[in-house]
Amino acid sequence: MKNIIIASTSTLHNGSYLDYLLPELKQHFSKATTVLFIPYARPSGISHDSYTEKVKEAFAKINKSIIGIHEFQNPIEAIENAQGIFTGGGNTFVLVNELYRNNVLDVLEKVIKSGTPYLGTSAGSNICGLTMNTTNDMPIVYPPSFRTLGLVPFNINPHYLDPDTNSTHMGETRETRINEFHFFNPQPVIGLREGSWLKVAGDSIQLKGSLTARVFRKNQIPEEVLPETELKDLK
Amino acid sequence: MKNIIIASTSTLHNGSYLDYLLPELKQHFSKATTVLFIPYARPSGISHDSYTEKVKEAFAKINKSIIGIHEFQNPIEAIENAQGIFTGGGNTFVLVNELYRNNVLDVLEKVIKSGTPYLGTSAGSNICGLTMNTTNDMPIVYPPSFRTLGLVPFNINPHYLDPDTNSTHMGETRETRINEFHFFNPQPVIGLREGSWLKVAGDSIQLKGSLTARVFRKNQIPEEVLPETELKDLK
Repeated sequence: MKNIIIASTSTLHNGSYLDYLLPELKQHFSKATTVLFIPYARPSGISHDSYTEKVKEAFAKINKSIIGIHEFQNPIEAIENAQGIFTGGGNTFVLVNELYRNNVLDVLEKVIKSGTPYLGTSAGSNICGLTMNTTNDMPIVYPPSFRTLGLVPFNINPHYLDPDTNSTHMGETRETRINEFHFFNPQPVIGLREGSWLKVAGDSIQLKGSLTARVFRKNQIPEEVLPETELKDLK
Repeated sequence: MKNIIIASTSTLHNGSYLDYLLPELKQHFSKATTVLFIPYARPSGISHDSYTEKVKEAFAKINKSIIGIHEFQNPIEAIENAQGIFTGGGNTFVLVNELYRNNVLDVLEKVIKSGTPYLGTSAGSNICGLTMNTTNDMPIVYPPSFRTLGLVPFNINPHYLDPDTNSTHMGETRETRINEFHFFNPQPVIGLREGSWLKVAGDSIQLKGSLTARVFRKNQIPEEVLPETELKDLK
């Protein structure tokens, strides 16, 4: 039975790393003493060791140990044996490239679908969708494919931002970008604002946090969905 | 002798399409009666015909005809025979994908390096750099490569945006993204603000417009460069 948290962000403005999620994570990882951390997305190019250290400090607050996947000789076995898994944010292209390079995408999908509790934030959430085509990140490396885990039957857009009506900037808004996505791709996209997360429990997919989320379906007007909305039929 | 304009944006806030560039374009395309337009980037998914129509209206103001590359049976011949070429903005992934699909990247590089006057705006500017790794666009399609024209020996970041110090949003700033790029890639990046363009004339590459531009080199503090700065040694 799937048991997944797909969070828009790790950190809220004025908050510290993972703070707002800790009560939820305590429950989510209740049966795990050690959680496997996947640091591949490397925000600001941070090393795997330093990133893992940062995550250790946060998880210590709920009495969980953290071990980085890069500390294992065999990352596939590390995933197979994990009691819980967390993939942190950073650059989604770098993350996906490393997942392919280490040949762990398939085993990750397998164990999460079999019930290993999983947490993703930002880039680690992007990969829960069908593809990474709706990331906000810069394509700083060229991954072998944009296909990701497909743990939910739609795509994720984390850090979703509403158009800024005061802006004089002429670059595309997030909504325009997602509309362009739908000229070339069929699947719905959920824009998760910072502070929102999806809770996947078996077949159920619920929006959590206090904010609404924005759902984009091809050739339809976007829809705001309320917290606690069931999204399992979004496909 | 190269003769290229690489513009951050097609349109300024409160301006109409290409307006601020028209005096420059009149001179740039002075020897062309007809300019070949490449509409592949399809902003907001607009059709090739509609996009070409919009460009026709703008170029009519300087008495130039426009013909879309999609109107030709053989796009390679269209490029070889063009008196001038303009690639418009939109989505860089879609643009690069179409350039590869139509097998025109090499011929485009060849004619521009031989002197066919070229204008790029936004996505059409991104492709003038060594690679498209520093685009701001969403990866809505998967192109066969991120390699682009290499008309200048560095990468372009159009629509460059300074960090918004009032923002509570936790997504990465443009500067952070470009720093992350430099963990994986060696070449400098120029952040071109809206209203700036690069003028390439033979070996010279000059910053034009009234704004400074931000130059990012690997492992160095970013530098603001003034209008009229010569950038041919940026590599």
